[in-house]
Amino acid sequence: MSEQLTLYLHKLSPFSQKVELALIEANAPYRGHQVDVFNKPEWFTSKVAPFGGKVPTVTYGGPSVDPQDPSPLSTKITESNVILEFLADLYPDSGLLPKDPVLRAKVRFFVDANTKHVEGPFYDFLRGRGSYENVLKGIEFVQGLLEEGRDFAVGNHYTIADACISPHLARLRIVTETDIGQFPVGMGSKLGEELKGPKFTKFTKYVDRMLERPSLKQSYDKEGVVTYFKTFFVRV
Amino acid sequence: MSEQLTLYLHKLSPFSQKVELALIEANAPYRGHQVDVFNKPEWFTSKVAPFGGKVPTVTYGGPSVDPQDPSPLSTKITESNVILEFLADLYPDSGLLPKDPVLRAKVRFFVDANTKHVEGPFYDFLRGRGSYENVLKGIEFVQGLLEEGRDFAVGNHYTIADACISPHLARLRIVTETDIGQFPVGMGSKLGEELKGPKFTKFTKYVDRMLERPSLKQSYDKEGVVTYFKTFFVRV
Ligand SMILES: N[C@@H](CCC(=O)N[C@@H](CS)C(=O)NCC(=O)O)C(=O)O
Ligand SMILES: N[C@@H](CCC(=O)N[C@@H](CS)C(=O)NCC(=O)O)C(=O)O
Repeated sequence: MSEQLTLYLHKLSPFSQKVELALIEANAPYRGHQVDVFNKPEWFTSKVAPFGGKVPTVTYGGPSVDPQDPSPLSTKITESNVILEFLADLYPDSGLLPKDPVLRAKVRFFVDANTKHVEGPFYDFLRGRGSYENVLKGIEFVQGLLEEGRDFAVGNHYTIADACISPHLARLRIVTETDIGQFPVGMGSKLGEELKGPKFTKFTKYVDRMLERPSLKQSYDKEGVVTYFKTFFVRV
Repeated sequence: MSEQLTLYLHKLSPFSQKVELALIEANAPYRGHQVDVFNKPEWFTSKVAPFGGKVPTVTYGGPSVDPQDPSPLSTKITESNVILEFLADLYPDSGLLPKDPVLRAKVRFFVDANTKHVEGPFYDFLRGRGSYENVLKGIEFVQGLLEEGRDFAVGNHYTIADACISPHLARLRIVTETDIGQFPVGMGSKLGEELKGPKFTKFTKYVDRMLERPSLKQSYDKEGVVTYFKTFFVRV
Protein backbone atom coordinates (compact mmCIF):
# COMPACT_ATOMS: atom_id res chain seq x y z
CA MET A 1 0.00 0.00 0.00
CA SER A 2 1.84 3.06 -1.18
CA GLU A 3 -1.01 5.47 -1.93
CA GLN A 4 -1.13 8.63 0.15
CA LEU A 5 -3.72 8.75 2.93
CA THR A 6 -4.65 11.98 4.65
CA LEU A 7 -6.95 12.03 7.64
CA TYR A 8 -8.89 15.23 8.18
CA LEU A 9 -9.74 15.29 11.84
CA HIS A 10 -10.50 17.35 14.88
CA LYS A 11 -8.44 16.48 17.92
CA LEU A 12 -11.46 16.53 20.24
CA SER A 13 -13.80 14.54 17.97
CA PRO A 14 -14.48 10.99 19.14
CA PHE A 15 -15.36 9.97 15.58
CA SER A 16 -12.00 11.22 14.34
CA GLN A 17 -10.26 9.40 17.16
CA LYS A 18 -11.77 6.06 16.07
CA VAL A 19 -9.92 6.39 12.79
CA GLU A 20 -6.67 7.58 14.37
CA LEU A 21 -6.77 4.57 16.70
CA ALA A 22 -7.16 2.18 13.79
CA LEU A 23 -4.35 3.84 11.83
CA ILE A 24 -2.00 3.71 14.80
CA GLU A 25 -2.91 0.12 15.67
CA ALA A 26 -2.37 -0.93 12.03
CA ASN A 27 0.93 0.92 11.99
CA ALA A 28 -0.26 2.62 8.82
CA PRO A 29 1.49 5.64 7.36
CA TYR A 30 -0.82 8.66 7.17
CA ARG A 31 -0.85 12.36 7.40
CA GLY A 32 -3.25 13.91 9.91
CA HIS A 33 -4.64 17.34 9.24
CA GLN A 34 -6.66 19.31 11.76
CA VAL A 35 -9.83 21.02 10.62
CA ASP A 36 -11.54 23.78 12.58
CA VAL A 37 -15.03 22.25 12.58
CA PHE A 38 -16.48 25.30 14.31
CA ASN A 39 -15.39 27.50 11.46
CA LYS A 40 -14.91 25.23 8.49
CA PRO A 41 -12.61 26.42 5.74
CA GLU A 42 -14.15 26.64 2.30
CA TRP A 43 -11.64 24.24 0.73
CA PHE A 44 -12.72 21.59 3.26
CA THR A 45 -16.46 21.68 2.59
CA SER A 46 -16.09 22.08 -1.16
CA LYS A 47 -13.13 19.83 -1.94
CA VAL A 48 -12.74 17.29 0.85
CA ALA A 49 -16.03 16.54 2.53
CA PRO A 50 -18.96 17.44 0.32
CA PHE A 51 -21.35 15.18 2.27
CA GLY A 52 -22.01 17.51 5.15
CA GLY A 53 -18.43 18.59 5.72
CA LYS A 54 -17.75 16.34 8.68
CA VAL A 55 -14.65 14.95 10.25
CA PRO A 56 -13.35 12.33 10.01
CA THR A 57 -12.84 12.30 6.26
CA VAL A 58 -9.89 10.71 4.52
CA THR A 59 -8.45 11.35 1.10
CA TYR A 60 -6.80 8.35 -0.46
CA GLY A 61 -4.60 8.13 -3.53
CA GLY A 62 -3.74 10.79 -6.04
CA PRO A 63 -0.61 12.94 -5.78
CA SER A 64 0.91 13.98 -2.47
CA VAL A 65 -0.34 17.51 -1.99
CA ASP A 66 -0.75 20.24 0.57
CA PRO A 67 -3.76 19.01 2.65
CA GLN A 68 -5.35 22.44 2.27
CA ASP A 69 -5.22 22.12 -1.49
CA PRO A 70 -6.62 18.61 -1.97
CA SER A 71 -6.34 16.94 -5.34
CA PRO A 72 -9.44 16.04 -7.37
CA LEU A 73 -7.59 12.79 -8.12
CA SER A 74 -7.91 11.39 -4.61
CA THR A 75 -10.92 9.47 -3.35
CA LYS A 76 -12.75 11.06 -0.44
CA ILE A 77 -14.19 8.74 2.20
CA THR A 78 -16.26 9.89 5.14
CA GLU A 79 -18.24 8.31 8.04
CA SER A 80 -16.00 6.86 10.71
CA ASN A 81 -17.32 3.29 10.53
CA VAL A 82 -16.95 3.23 6.74
CA ILE A 83 -13.37 4.44 7.10
CA LEU A 84 -12.65 1.75 9.70
CA GLU A 85 -13.75 -0.96 7.26
CA PHE A 86 -11.70 0.70 4.54
CA LEU A 87 -8.56 0.55 6.70
CA ALA A 88 -9.26 -3.10 7.50
CA ASP A 89 -9.44 -3.73 3.73
CA LEU A 90 -6.25 -1.80 3.03
CA TYR A 91 -4.42 -3.66 5.80
CA PRO A 92 -5.78 -7.20 5.76
CA ASP A 93 -2.90 -8.43 7.91
CA SER A 94 -3.30 -5.78 10.58
CA GLY A 95 -5.91 -7.80 12.43
CA LEU A 96 -8.27 -4.79 12.36
CA LEU A 97 -10.74 -7.37 11.09
CA PRO A 98 -10.21 -11.10 11.63
CA LYS A 99 -10.05 -13.34 8.56
CA ASP A 100 -12.83 -15.68 9.64
CA PRO A 101 -16.28 -14.65 8.35
CA VAL A 102 -18.03 -15.54 11.61
CA LEU A 103 -15.60 -13.49 13.69
CA ARG A 104 -15.90 -10.64 11.21
CA ALA A 105 -19.67 -10.74 11.70
CA LYS A 106 -19.15 -10.53 15.46
CA VAL A 107 -16.96 -7.47 15.04
CA ARG A 108 -19.59 -5.84 12.85
CA PHE A 109 -22.38 -6.65 15.25
CA PHE A 110 -20.32 -4.95 17.96
CA VAL A 111 -19.74 -1.89 15.76
CA ASP A 112 -23.48 -1.73 15.06
CA ALA A 113 -24.24 -2.10 18.79
CA ASN A 114 -21.85 0.74 19.59
CA THR A 115 -23.63 3.00 17.11
CA LYS A 116 -27.12 2.15 18.37
CA HIS A 117 -26.62 1.52 22.05
CA VAL A 118 -23.65 3.70 23.04
CA GLU A 119 -23.25 6.67 20.69
CA GLY A 120 -26.91 7.63 20.66
CA PRO A 121 -27.77 7.22 24.36
CA PHE A 122 -24.47 8.57 25.72
CA TYR A 123 -24.33 11.84 23.78
CA ASP A 124 -28.04 12.42 24.35
CA PHE A 125 -27.42 12.02 28.08
CA LEU A 126 -24.42 14.37 27.95
CA ARG A 127 -26.61 16.99 26.28
CA GLY A 128 -29.36 16.58 28.86
CA ARG A 129 -31.70 15.08 26.28
CA GLY A 130 -31.51 11.37 27.00
CA SER A 131 -32.10 9.23 30.03
CA TYR A 132 -29.66 7.75 32.50
CA GLU A 133 -31.45 4.42 32.12
CA ASN A 134 -30.77 4.30 28.39
CA VAL A 135 -27.07 4.82 28.94
CA LEU A 136 -27.01 1.94 31.42
CA LYS A 137 -29.08 -0.29 29.15
CA GLY A 138 -26.66 0.37 26.30
CA ILE A 139 -23.68 -0.45 28.48
CA GLU A 140 -25.37 -3.66 29.59
CA PHE A 141 -25.96 -4.62 25.98
CA VAL A 142 -22.32 -4.05 25.09
CA GLN A 143 -21.13 -5.87 28.20
CA GLY A 144 -23.21 -8.83 27.09
CA LEU A 145 -21.10 -9.03 23.95
CA LEU A 146 -17.78 -9.12 25.80
CA GLU A 147 -16.44 -12.60 26.28
CA GLU A 148 -15.12 -13.57 29.68
CA GLY A 149 -11.34 -13.86 29.81
CA ARG A 150 -10.63 -11.97 26.62
CA ASP A 151 -8.73 -8.72 26.37
CA PHE A 152 -10.53 -7.38 23.32
CA ALA A 153 -14.10 -6.84 22.21
CA VAL A 154 -13.95 -9.78 19.82
CA GLY A 155 -11.33 -12.51 19.61
CA ASN A 156 -7.71 -12.14 20.66
CA HIS A 157 -6.70 -9.05 18.76
CA TYR A 158 -7.42 -5.34 18.61
CA THR A 159 -10.11 -4.84 15.95
CA ILE A 160 -12.27 -2.03 14.62
CA ALA A 161 -14.75 -3.05 17.35
CA ASP A 162 -12.29 -1.79 19.96
CA ALA A 163 -11.42 1.28 17.87
CA CYS A 164 -15.05 2.32 17.40
CA ILE A 165 -15.98 2.29 21.07
CA SER A 166 -12.77 3.40 22.82
CA PRO A 167 -13.12 7.15 22.18
CA HIS A 168 -16.58 7.04 23.75
CA LEU A 169 -15.31 5.04 26.71
CA ALA A 170 -12.70 7.73 27.31
CA ARG A 171 -15.40 10.42 27.32
CA LEU A 172 -17.68 8.31 29.51
CA ARG A 173 -14.83 8.14 32.02
CA ILE A 174 -14.62 11.95 32.06
CA VAL A 175 -18.34 12.17 32.74
CA THR A 176 -18.24 9.68 35.61
CA GLU A 177 -15.14 11.28 37.13
CA THR A 178 -16.12 14.93 36.83
CA ASP A 179 -19.93 14.97 36.63
CA ILE A 180 -19.59 17.46 33.75
CA GLY A 181 -22.56 17.38 31.39
CA GLN A 182 -26.06 18.75 30.94
CA PHE A 183 -27.75 15.94 32.88
CA PRO A 184 -28.99 16.74 36.41
CA VAL A 185 -26.18 17.35 38.94
CA GLY A 186 -24.85 14.11 40.40
CA MET A 187 -26.04 11.76 37.66
CA GLY A 188 -22.58 11.46 36.11
CA SER A 189 -21.05 10.53 39.47
CA LYS A 190 -23.91 8.13 40.14
CA LEU A 191 -23.19 6.42 36.84
CA GLY A 192 -19.58 6.12 37.92
CA GLU A 193 -20.59 4.43 41.19
CA GLU A 194 -22.91 2.09 39.36
CA LEU A 195 -20.17 1.07 36.93
CA LYS A 196 -17.82 0.28 39.82
CA GLY A 197 -20.35 -2.23 41.18
CA PRO A 198 -20.20 -6.00 40.66
CA LYS A 199 -22.81 -5.94 37.90
CA PHE A 200 -20.46 -4.04 35.60
CA THR A 201 -17.10 -5.58 36.44
CA LYS A 202 -16.63 -7.08 32.99
CA PHE A 203 -17.40 -3.79 31.25
CA THR A 204 -15.31 -1.64 33.58
CA LYS A 205 -12.29 -3.90 33.26
CA TYR A 206 -12.63 -3.69 29.49
CA VAL A 207 -12.76 0.12 29.72
CA ASP A 208 -9.64 0.15 31.89
CA ARG A 209 -7.79 -2.00 29.37
CA MET A 210 -8.82 0.16 26.44
CA LEU A 211 -7.80 3.38 28.21
CA GLU A 212 -4.37 1.89 28.87
CA ARG A 213 -3.61 1.25 25.19
CA PRO A 214 -0.70 3.33 23.91
CA SER A 215 -2.76 4.11 20.78
CA LEU A 216 -5.48 5.63 22.98
CA LYS A 217 -3.03 7.78 24.89
CA GLN A 218 -1.31 8.90 21.72
CA SER A 219 -4.57 9.96 20.06
CA TYR A 220 -6.31 11.48 23.07
CA ASP A 221 -6.14 15.02 24.41
CA LYS A 222 -7.93 14.45 27.70
CA GLU A 223 -7.38 17.99 29.03
CA GLY A 224 -8.70 19.37 25.77
CA VAL A 225 -11.84 17.26 25.92
CA VAL A 226 -12.49 18.22 29.56
CA THR A 227 -12.17 21.91 28.67
CA TYR A 228 -14.43 21.40 25.67
CA PHE A 229 -17.08 19.60 27.74
CA LYS A 230 -16.92 22.34 30.39
CA THR A 231 -17.44 25.00 27.77
CA PHE A 232 -20.13 23.37 25.66
CA PHE A 233 -22.08 21.13 28.00
CA VAL A 234 -23.01 23.75 30.58
CA ARG A 235 -26.10 23.22 32.72
CA VAL A 236 -28.65 26.00 32.29
CA MET B 1 -18.75 -23.24 1.47
CA SER B 2 -20.61 -26.27 2.64
CA GLU B 3 -21.86 -25.23 6.06
CA GLN B 4 -25.59 -25.09 6.52
CA LEU B 5 -27.22 -21.65 6.46
CA THR B 6 -30.77 -21.09 7.65
CA LEU B 7 -32.48 -17.74 7.25
CA TYR B 8 -35.23 -16.99 9.75
CA LEU B 9 -37.42 -14.44 8.09
CA HIS B 10 -40.83 -12.94 7.76
CA LYS B 11 -42.14 -12.72 4.22
CA LEU B 12 -43.37 -9.13 4.68
CA SER B 13 -40.28 -7.81 6.46
CA PRO B 14 -38.12 -5.52 4.32
CA PHE B 15 -35.09 -6.31 6.48
CA SER B 16 -35.56 -10.02 5.85
CA GLN B 17 -35.93 -9.35 2.15
CA LYS B 18 -32.53 -7.63 2.00
CA VAL B 19 -30.92 -10.89 3.04
CA GLU B 20 -33.03 -13.04 0.73
CA LEU B 21 -32.06 -10.79 -2.17
CA ALA B 22 -28.37 -11.18 -1.41
CA LEU B 23 -28.68 -14.97 -1.07
CA ILE B 24 -30.53 -15.25 -4.36
CA GLU B 25 -28.15 -12.91 -6.18
CA ALA B 26 -25.16 -14.86 -4.86
CA ASN B 27 -26.81 -18.09 -5.88
CA ALA B 28 -26.17 -19.35 -2.37
CA PRO B 29 -27.78 -22.49 -0.97
CA TYR B 30 -29.91 -21.73 2.08
CA ARG B 31 -33.01 -22.80 3.85
CA GLY B 32 -35.59 -20.12 4.59
CA HIS B 33 -37.81 -20.49 7.61
CA GLN B 34 -40.77 -18.22 8.32
CA VAL B 35 -41.21 -16.86 11.82
CA ASP B 36 -44.47 -15.40 13.07
CA VAL B 37 -43.04 -12.14 14.41
CA PHE B 38 -46.41 -11.11 15.80
CA ASN B 39 -46.49 -14.15 18.00
CA LYS B 40 -42.94 -15.33 18.35
CA PRO B 41 -42.35 -18.95 19.22
CA GLU B 42 -40.35 -19.57 22.37
CA TRP B 43 -37.66 -21.58 20.56
CA PHE B 44 -37.02 -18.57 18.32
CA THR B 45 -36.43 -15.97 21.05
CA SER B 46 -34.50 -18.32 23.30
CA LYS B 47 -32.44 -20.33 20.82
CA VAL B 48 -32.15 -18.39 17.59
CA ALA B 49 -32.34 -14.67 18.17
CA PRO B 50 -31.52 -13.77 21.76
CA PHE B 51 -30.76 -10.13 20.86
CA GLY B 52 -34.30 -8.88 20.68
CA GLY B 53 -35.76 -11.79 18.74
CA LYS B 54 -35.79 -10.05 15.39
CA VAL B 55 -35.85 -11.24 11.85
CA PRO B 56 -33.72 -11.55 9.85
CA THR B 57 -31.46 -13.87 11.80
CA VAL B 58 -29.34 -16.58 10.26
CA THR B 59 -27.87 -19.69 11.78
CA TYR B 60 -24.65 -20.82 10.18
CA GLY B 61 -22.76 -24.07 10.59
CA GLY B 62 -23.39 -26.93 12.95
CA PRO B 63 -25.46 -29.96 12.00
CA SER B 64 -28.40 -29.82 9.59
CA VAL B 65 -31.40 -29.72 11.89
CA ASP B 66 -35.10 -28.97 11.99
CA PRO B 67 -35.19 -25.13 11.92
CA GLN B 68 -37.58 -25.18 14.88
CA ASP B 69 -35.05 -27.10 16.92
CA PRO B 70 -31.88 -25.10 16.27
CA SER B 71 -28.54 -26.51 17.26
CA PRO B 72 -26.39 -24.81 19.93
CA LEU B 73 -23.48 -25.59 17.60
CA SER B 74 -24.47 -23.08 14.93
CA THR B 75 -23.50 -19.41 15.00
CA LYS B 76 -26.42 -16.99 15.17
CA ILE B 77 -26.08 -13.73 13.25
CA THR B 78 -28.64 -10.96 13.32
CA GLU B 79 -28.98 -7.38 11.96
CA SER B 80 -29.62 -7.29 8.24
CA ASN B 81 -26.59 -5.18 7.32
CA VAL B 82 -24.27 -7.40 9.35
CA ILE B 83 -25.69 -10.45 7.58
CA LEU B 84 -25.18 -8.80 4.18
CA GLU B 85 -21.48 -8.30 4.94
CA PHE B 86 -21.29 -11.87 6.20
CA LEU B 87 -22.68 -13.18 2.92
CA ALA B 88 -20.23 -11.03 0.97
CA ASP B 89 -17.43 -12.60 3.04
CA LEU B 90 -18.75 -16.14 2.52
CA TYR B 91 -19.08 -15.54 -1.22
CA PRO B 92 -16.16 -13.33 -2.19
CA ASP B 93 -16.67 -14.09 -5.89
CA SER B 94 -20.38 -13.28 -5.89
CA GLY B 95 -19.72 -9.59 -6.48
CA LEU B 96 -21.90 -8.75 -3.45
CA LEU B 97 -18.93 -6.61 -2.51
CA PRO B 98 -16.34 -5.53 -5.08
CA LYS B 99 -12.70 -6.50 -4.47
CA ASP B 100 -11.32 -2.98 -4.66
CA PRO B 101 -11.13 -1.25 -1.23
CA VAL B 102 -12.28 2.10 -2.62
CA LEU B 103 -15.33 0.57 -4.28
CA ARG B 104 -16.07 -1.40 -1.13
CA ALA B 105 -16.04 1.87 0.81
CA LYS B 106 -18.52 3.33 -1.70
CA VAL B 107 -20.83 0.37 -1.19
CA ARG B 108 -20.62 0.79 2.57
CA PHE B 109 -21.25 4.52 2.39
CA PHE B 110 -24.37 3.73 0.37
CA VAL B 111 -25.51 1.14 2.93
CA ASP B 112 -24.98 3.68 5.71
CA ALA B 113 -26.88 6.32 3.72
CA ASN B 114 -29.77 3.91 3.24
CA THR B 115 -29.96 3.31 6.99
CA LYS B 116 -29.81 6.99 7.90
CA HIS B 117 -31.58 8.70 5.04
CA VAL B 118 -34.09 6.14 3.76
CA GLU B 119 -35.06 3.64 6.46
CA GLY B 120 -35.56 6.21 9.21
CA PRO B 121 -37.42 8.93 7.28
CA PHE B 122 -39.53 6.57 5.14
CA TYR B 123 -40.96 4.39 7.91
CA ASP B 124 -41.51 7.44 10.12
CA PHE B 125 -43.50 9.01 7.27
CA LEU B 126 -45.48 5.80 6.74
CA ARG B 127 -46.41 5.82 10.44
CA GLY B 128 -47.46 9.46 10.31
CA ARG B 129 -44.56 10.48 12.52
CA GLY B 130 -42.07 11.90 10.04
CA SER B 131 -42.14 14.63 7.47
CA TYR B 132 -42.64 14.46 3.74
CA GLU B 133 -39.64 16.77 3.36
CA ASN B 134 -37.33 14.35 5.15
CA VAL B 135 -38.34 11.55 2.83
CA LEU B 136 -37.56 13.71 -0.18
CA LYS B 137 -34.28 14.90 1.31
CA GLY B 138 -33.24 11.31 1.90
CA ILE B 139 -34.11 10.34 -1.66
CA GLU B 140 -32.12 13.29 -2.94
CA PHE B 141 -29.14 12.21 -0.89
CA VAL B 142 -29.27 8.70 -2.27
CA GLN B 143 -29.80 9.93 -5.81
CA GLY B 144 -26.64 12.00 -5.39
CA LEU B 145 -24.72 8.76 -4.87
CA LEU B 146 -26.00 7.10 -8.05
CA GLU B 147 -23.60 7.43 -10.95
CA GLU B 148 -24.97 8.45 -14.32
CA GLY B 149 -25.07 5.62 -16.84
CA ARG B 150 -24.68 2.79 -14.35
CA ASP B 151 -27.24 0.11 -13.68
CA PHE B 152 -26.36 -0.50 -10.06
CA ALA B 153 -25.87 1.59 -6.93
CA VAL B 154 -22.09 1.21 -7.11
CA GLY B 155 -19.98 -0.08 -9.98
CA ASN B 156 -21.14 -2.54 -12.60
CA HIS B 157 -22.50 -5.32 -10.47
CA TYR B 158 -25.32 -6.03 -8.04
CA THR B 159 -23.92 -5.45 -4.54
CA ILE B 160 -25.19 -5.33 -0.97
CA ALA B 161 -25.88 -1.63 -1.64
CA ASP B 162 -28.63 -2.67 -4.07
CA ALA B 163 -29.86 -5.41 -1.75
CA CYS B 164 -30.15 -3.12 1.27
CA ILE B 165 -32.28 -0.49 -0.42
CA SER B 166 -34.44 -2.49 -2.84
CA PRO B 167 -37.00 -3.78 -0.31
CA HIS B 168 -37.64 -0.19 0.76
CA LEU B 169 -37.93 0.98 -2.83
CA ALA B 170 -40.60 -1.65 -3.40
CA ARG B 171 -42.56 -0.39 -0.39
CA LEU B 172 -42.06 3.23 -1.42
CA ARG B 173 -43.63 2.32 -4.75
CA ILE B 174 -46.69 0.94 -2.95
CA VAL B 175 -47.04 4.16 -0.99
CA THR B 176 -46.79 6.36 -4.08
CA GLU B 177 -49.19 4.17 -6.08
CA THR B 178 -51.85 3.61 -3.41
CA ASP B 179 -51.49 6.51 -0.96
CA ILE B 180 -51.75 3.95 1.86
CA GLY B 181 -50.08 5.12 5.06
CA GLN B 182 -50.65 7.21 8.16
CA PHE B 183 -49.47 10.46 6.57
CA PRO B 184 -52.14 13.01 5.57
CA VAL B 185 -54.37 11.88 2.65
CA GLY B 186 -52.76 12.64 -0.69
CA MET B 187 -49.18 12.95 0.48
CA GLY B 188 -48.23 9.50 -0.84
CA SER B 189 -49.62 10.32 -4.27
CA LYS B 190 -47.94 13.71 -4.18
CA LEU B 191 -44.63 12.00 -3.48
CA GLY B 192 -45.29 9.80 -6.50
CA GLU B 193 -45.86 12.84 -8.73
CA GLU B 194 -42.74 14.49 -7.42
CA LEU B 195 -40.63 11.41 -8.13
CA LYS B 196 -41.93 11.30 -11.71
CA GLY B 197 -40.60 14.83 -12.29
CA PRO B 198 -37.30 15.67 -14.00
CA LYS B 199 -35.51 16.30 -10.72
CA PHE B 200 -35.77 12.63 -9.76
CA THR B 201 -35.26 10.89 -13.10
CA LYS B 202 -32.03 9.22 -12.07
CA PHE B 203 -33.53 7.88 -8.85
CA THR B 204 -36.79 6.72 -10.42
CA LYS B 205 -35.00 4.89 -13.23
CA TYR B 206 -32.87 3.16 -10.63
CA VAL B 207 -36.02 2.13 -8.72
CA ASP B 208 -37.55 0.77 -11.93
CA ARG B 209 -34.45 -1.31 -12.63
CA MET B 210 -34.32 -2.70 -9.10
CA LEU B 211 -38.01 -3.66 -9.15
CA GLU B 212 -37.46 -5.55 -12.40
CA ARG B 213 -34.76 -7.83 -10.95
CA PRO B 214 -35.84 -11.48 -10.88
CA SER B 215 -34.43 -11.71 -7.34
CA LEU B 216 -36.77 -8.93 -6.24
CA LYS B 217 -39.80 -10.58 -7.77
CA GLN B 218 -38.88 -13.94 -6.30
CA SER B 219 -38.50 -12.56 -2.77
CA TYR B 220 -41.42 -10.12 -2.77
CA ASP B 221 -45.07 -10.72 -1.87
CA LYS B 222 -46.48 -7.41 -3.08
CA GLU B 223 -50.13 -8.32 -2.39
CA GLY B 224 -49.16 -9.43 1.09
CA VAL B 225 -47.38 -6.16 1.81
CA VAL B 226 -50.31 -4.10 0.49
CA THR B 227 -52.71 -6.01 2.74
CA TYR B 228 -50.35 -5.59 5.68
CA PHE B 229 -49.99 -1.84 5.09
CA LYS B 230 -53.80 -1.49 4.77
CA THR B 231 -54.27 -3.31 8.05
CA PHE B 232 -51.53 -1.73 10.14
CA PHE B 233 -51.05 1.75 8.76
CA VAL B 234 -54.61 2.97 9.08
CA ARG B 235 -55.28 6.68 9.37
CA VAL B 236 -57.03 7.60 12.62
N1 LIG C 1 -21.61 9.74 11.84
C1 LIG C 1 -20.40 10.51 11.68
C2 LIG C 1 -20.35 11.61 12.70
C3 LIG C 1 -19.23 12.60 12.46
C4 LIG C 1 -19.42 13.88 13.24
O1 LIG C 1 -20.48 14.14 13.80
N2 LIG C 1 -18.37 14.70 13.28
C5 LIG C 1 -18.43 15.97 13.96
C6 LIG C 1 -17.27 16.12 14.90
S1 LIG C 1 -17.36 14.92 16.23
C7 LIG C 1 -18.36 17.08 12.95
O2 LIG C 1 -17.63 17.01 11.98
N3 LIG C 1 -19.15 18.12 13.18
C8 LIG C 1 -19.18 19.26 12.33
C9 LIG C 1 -20.47 19.36 11.60
O3 LIG C 1 -21.31 18.45 11.71
O4 LIG C 1 -20.64 20.35 10.89
C10 LIG C 1 -19.19 9.60 11.80
O5 LIG C 1 -19.32 8.54 12.44
O6 LIG C 1 -18.15 9.89 11.19
N1 LIG D 1 -32.25 -3.22 12.42
C1 LIG D 1 -32.83 -4.53 12.19
C2 LIG D 1 -34.34 -4.39 12.08
C3 LIG D 1 -35.03 -5.72 12.05
C4 LIG D 1 -36.52 -5.59 12.35
O1 LIG D 1 -36.99 -4.53 12.79
N2 LIG D 1 -37.27 -6.69 12.12
C5 LIG D 1 -38.68 -6.69 12.39
C6 LIG D 1 -39.45 -7.18 11.19
S1 LIG D 1 -39.29 -6.06 9.82
C7 LIG D 1 -38.96 -7.63 13.54
O2 LIG D 1 -38.35 -8.69 13.66
N3 LIG D 1 -39.86 -7.23 14.43
C8 LIG D 1 -40.24 -8.01 15.54
C9 LIG D 1 -39.80 -7.41 16.84
O3 LIG D 1 -39.10 -6.36 16.79
O4 LIG D 1 -40.14 -7.94 17.88
C10 LIG D 1 -32.25 -5.11 10.91
O5 LIG D 1 -31.82 -4.33 10.05
O6 LIG D 1 -32.20 -6.34 10.77
